[in-house]
Amino acid sequence: MNNPEFEAVMLAHGGGGELMQQLIHTVLLPALGNSPGTLSDSAVLDAPGQRLAFTTDSYVVKPLFFHGGDIGRLAVCGTVNDLAVCGGSPIALSLGMIIAEGTPGEVVQRIAESVGVAAREAGVPVVTGDTKVVERGAADGVFLNTSGIGLVPESVLLSPTSCESGDAVIVSGAIGDHGIAIMSEREGLSFESPVVSDVAPLNHMIADVLAVPEGIRCMRDATRGGVAAVLNELAVASGVCIRIEESAVPVHPAVHGACDLLGLDPFEVANEGKVVVVCSGERAERAVQVMRRHTAGAEAAIVGQVEDGRAGRVLLQTPIGGDRILDMPYGEQLPRIC
Amino acid sequence: MNNPEFEAVMLAHGGGGELMQQLIHTVLLPALGNSPGTLSDSAVLDAPGQRLAFTTDSYVVKPLFFHGGDIGRLAVCGTVNDLAVCGGSPIALSLGMIIAEGTPGEVVQRIAESVGVAAREAGVPVVTGDTKVVERGAADGVFLNTSGIGLVPESVLLSPTSCESGDAVIVSGAIGDHGIAIMSEREGLSFESPVVSDVAPLNHMIADVLAVPEGIRCMRDATRGGVAAVLNELAVASGVCIRIEESAVPVHPAVHGACDLLGLDPFEVANEGKVVVVCSGERAERAVQVMRRHTAGAEAAIVGQVEDGRAGRVLLQTPIGGDRILDMPYGEQLPRIC
Repeated sequence: MNNPEFEAVMLAHGGGGELMQQLIHTVLLPALGNSPGTLSDSAVLDAPGQRLAFTTDSYVVKPLFFHGGDIGRLAVCGTVNDLAVCGGSPIALSLGMIIAEGTPGEVVQRIAESVGVAAREAGVPVVTGDTKVVERGAADGVFLNTSGIGLVPESVLLSPTSCESGDAVIVSGAIGDHGIAIMSEREGLSFESPVVSDVAPLNHMIADVLAVPEGIRCMRDATRGGVAAVLNELAVASGVCIRIEESAVPVHPAVHGACDLLGLDPFEVANEGKVVVVCSGERAERAVQVMRRHTAGAEAAIVGQVEDGRAGRVLLQTPIGGDRILDMPYGEQLPRIC
Repeated sequence: MNNPEFEAVMLAHGGGGELMQQLIHTVLLPALGNSPGTLSDSAVLDAPGQRLAFTTDSYVVKPLFFHGGDIGRLAVCGTVNDLAVCGGSPIALSLGMIIAEGTPGEVVQRIAESVGVAAREAGVPVVTGDTKVVERGAADGVFLNTSGIGLVPESVLLSPTSCESGDAVIVSGAIGDHGIAIMSEREGLSFESPVVSDVAPLNHMIADVLAVPEGIRCMRDATRGGVAAVLNELAVASGVCIRIEESAVPVHPAVHGACDLLGLDPFEVANEGKVVVVCSGERAERAVQVMRRHTAGAEAAIVGQVEDGRAGRVLLQTPIGGDRILDMPYGEQLPRIC
């Protein structure tokens, strides 16, 4: 912003020389709120635990900026949430940027600032990074990668294979917001009130859920492939049947409308701030109460249960009383959603 | 290869659904030599240490395959080496792939296999990954990101600020091979014997160097910006002058020839299997002997020393006895070298 020399990215900004140092020191580190310090090939961290969670995600979302977020916020939240659902308390993030030559400097700066804001919201520092610049046309604007490390307490034992008959299925809020927010930007759809992406770091809420004594079997954030993909993975991994009551699943009206219009199933639409929790039936109400204390979990609800019977199947009980099979999505109807 | 259905990548291969599961299970995991197991959002690792090194790099090299390596080998070695030069013993890698729709399946398979081979050579498993597919034209073939975690023993204290007058500067072998290998492919240059990239994992050699008792101040792998960038960073960080004897620095004749032809300085050309080590003068011979026991260090040599005087400067003593200043490269003459 206050960097008049950085009008657009040049190939030399990715070259490992003085111009890259300038980009790092005048744009990236200030945006991330990091002190300059000595940049080394790796960050060295104190890790006062013995079990680590480690995850990576690349982000290619289009457009880069959308209602409720942008690629930078998405990259932080996606990786923080992947650590959190594995029981990991995030301690460090990395940030890899691939930028097309000619990308306006302001775009890079806004994205870096958004990474910084989201990282502070999650309470996790970006400790290491990398920037590559490719020639015009070789990449579509900006791609990011974030990897993350979390500490997993010995007491946390989550596994997609541990769902049992009698367990409850919880969704932390309304589904489909992120995917529809992106699609409506891309297709130029407008609603009375715009659909806003749910992209948010869930680590604080998930830590509180994990503090509920016992009974939490497994968690997944429902990103690409939506809630349908998560439920199918869990049903297969645990060899159980999962029955969902469709009317219990929160879906915002505008998302319903957009899905009808676009021929999409909200269960298959990506979320970026929703977690599916399977826990023992007895603990479910308590877990929902804990989630509702957080903004990100204000609409949390018990939406179904685990049953014996058709192992590996997910059944959706429709409002008129019938059952339909909720299949694993085949591919993605919505490319570049994250 | 033996996967006739996987002729080309489709957008749906990146969608989080069944087709992505197929890609992961029939192509990626077998190529990496990983057991299928249960794929979760994060890998969970036992980490029997308290200090971690953490690094990330994206790879956009063009062409994807070149003499001596390919983008997959590059991605593993680059990240392993970044951990190793910080004193980290690598324990885990992540792999993020961004693939353009229409990329031949064979290309993805060869790259994944190369990742697997290099990871085994380094002795480091790929424990977590992510695949995104973007539409034709939105990315140039395949981009990779690898992040890595290493364990840093308490006894290892390396810092770019710790170079002292009287220290020796060691280079682990001939410089410029990687950059010239890429450029000759790209420019269609041919030599009597082709220049072969030096891309290699250096972690085993570096572990042996670190076992030399005391005296190792700092290490850097000389990638983008070449040896010139590394030496300038160290000279500035430590507030010292570094004097290099040009004739002591190994450069293969074909690299010399290509640099003359292309107007490049071998000191600014990228390496992917060379480390610059600064250590106390007394320990230098011992360190070189240790390096020469490894294929990657067969041509290791003491090439200069640290001096008081012009702080932050790197001086190159030419064969005819003069000094020239070796500056920090401004940008990269060779985009998409890694």
